[in-house]
Parts: sequence; structure tokens; C-alpha cells
Amino acid sequence: MMAIQDSMDVLYGKWKISIISSICFYNKRRFSDILNDVVGISNKMLSKELKELETNKLITRTVLDTQPITVQYQLTEHGKSLQTIINNLTDWGIKHRLEIIGK
Amino acid sequence: MMAIQDSMDVLYGKWKISIISSICFYNKRRFSDILNDVVGISNKMLSKELKELETNKLITRTVLDTQPITVQYQLTEHGKSLQTIINNLTDWGIKHRLEIIGK
Repeated sequence: MMAIQDSMDVLYGKWKISIISSICFYNKRRFSDILNDVVGISNKMLSKELKELETNKLITRTVLDTQPITVQYQLTEHGKSLQTIINNLTDWGIKHRLEIIGK
Repeated sequence: MMAIQDSMDVLYGKWKISIISSICFYNKRRFSDILNDVVGISNKMLSKELKELETNKLITRTVLDTQPITVQYQLTEHGKSLQTIINNLTDWGIKHRLEIIGK
């Protein structure tokens, strides 16, 4: 039971898995792109969630010397180990939608 | 991306996956047992989360005619389809603990 709690302590909340899957899907992703990918998330919430994911060694943050400056995120090797869970959650989401609203 | 959001809309929060894994592990589980399994959850929060899981057709609720009355929960077939995700989250939780605190 504790191991599941460890996972959920890192991944809990409505947004983290969606943020990780956005970065995971494109391998490298800028802040503004993630903001578009994850429907409904605010700028402030995204910053907070990204910081927590960084603290948990799931992503790295790179500042690109562009005009204006852009910040890019990438999964660490540890972050990539979530790929299977993300795929399973995607499949399950489709199955759940079918079960609940039948389409 | 939407499919992941569908999953997380159902499973979000710190407790749901732990509640499901408690019921899943024992196949049938009483309210008081789940309360003990899921460390830190309050009586009120557990009631709310169980209601949401029931609404999403993941569990069923049975009132047993005992003295005092007991309420028992069981996974539906749809709920059981979460087994793979729960196993993966358990494995990942162990891996994450190793990565972060090295034991």
C-alpha cells in the first residue's frame, strides 16, 4: 500500500500526469506549448506543478537564449519510466469514456 | 491528451488509487478496513471518495445485515480493469523511492 501512496504523492492532482504526457509525447516541450496542451490549466498552476516535478527529478528545465527567452522542459530517465503508466492511463481513459457515456 | 484527462478526472486526488488498491487487494472490503488501509484519510473524505467511485461505476456498495450494520465495497468489472495501472503504480512507487532517497 505504501508504494502506491509514494506514487500518488508524486503524481497526485489533476494536472501532473497530463503535463508529463505532454512533455513525453514531444520529448522536449516549451512552457507555452504545455500551457496549450493541458486544457484548463492556469499559468500559475503550471509553474507550480513543473517545479514539483523538477524537485521529484522527473523533468529538467533548460533556459534557451532566444528573444524573448524561452524555457524548455524535458523528461529525465526517471521521468521516462512513467511511459508505461501514461500509455495505460490513456487506454483506460478511452475505455472509461465508453463505459460511462457509451461513445 | 483528452483520454489521459478523462482518466485523471476519475482518479485524481491523493486517495482514490489507494482506496481502489485496498478493495482490489482483498476483493471485498468494509468501510472500516479501508479506513485502516489508507493511512491518513479521514472518515468524511473516505465517504466522499467512495461515493465518487460509485458514481463512476468503479465500485459497488452492499449493506450487510449485521449487528451493527456493516457496509462492504467491491470492484465492478470496470473497476477491475484498473488492476494493471495499480500494479504499475506500485512498481513505480518502489522505483521512485529508490531514486529519491536511495532505499
